[in-house]
Amino acid sequence: MPAAINLETQFARFTETWSPHIVGELNGQHVKLFKLEGDKCPWHSHAGEDEMFLILDGTLDIHLRDSVVPVGPGEFFIVRKGLEHRVVPRGSVRGLLFEPATTAHTGDVQSDITRQDYRSLID
Amino acid sequence: MPAAINLETQFARFTETWSPHIVGELNGQHVKLFKLEGDKCPWHSHAGEDEMFLILDGTLDIHLRDSVVPVGPGEFFIVRKGLEHRVVPRGSVRGLLFEPATTAHTGDVQSDITRQDYRSLID
Repeated sequence: MPAAINLETQFARFTETWSPHIVGELNGQHVKLFKLEGDKCPWHSHAGEDEMFLILDGTLDIHLRDSVVPVGPGEFFIVRKGLEHRVVPRGSVRGLLFEPATTAHTGDVQSDITRQDYRSLID
Repeated sequence: MPAAINLETQFARFTETWSPHIVGELNGQHVKLFKLEGDKCPWHSHAGEDEMFLILDGTLDIHLRDSVVPVGPGEFFIVRKGLEHRVVPRGSVRGLLFEPATTAHTGDVQSDITRQDYRSLID
């Protein structure tokens, strides 16, 4: 039987930070949940993909080369393709990513947090 | 200066029910906010587009031909392309739609709630 996906239930299924987990797929896009903590994200960009961050808990500072965009609970921000960015959570942050299924975690940049693929929580 | 989009701020900018408003666009997809009340939605489908409903307040019953999927706050459901559905809010419901920019409101079906286009709240 088809059923709704509960975000809290899915968050409870993983503890890793900096490791977005896939919870939905539609029209070639992925819906991923993430937990972030610490200042670990390198500068990177995604040449062909816009990336949307919807924040559920905490505040995520999205650093662009010329400004910082704070994104709090109930807010979202779309990083346009090609735009260099890095994200820095204030404390612990949880949220949801919408982006094409083809999106590489840290673009072409390799770093400690880079994932080669994403774990999926759906069948 | 780039800034985050606050969902509450955007919800405060419209009162109409059954009239999704565009608050974001990325990768050919739209992010829309909706307010629903009453039993007004006809059976319809979207031949080429999956449609994601993320519920923020209230419970939305998504009727499929062979089942009903209740979707509560903090839950989402993806209606697959081609699948007939109608949505029935329990009281008032607010949420977010994620779907291709090409998606027609009620598919090929014309009804009292059908919109020929969507109002945008973004520049």
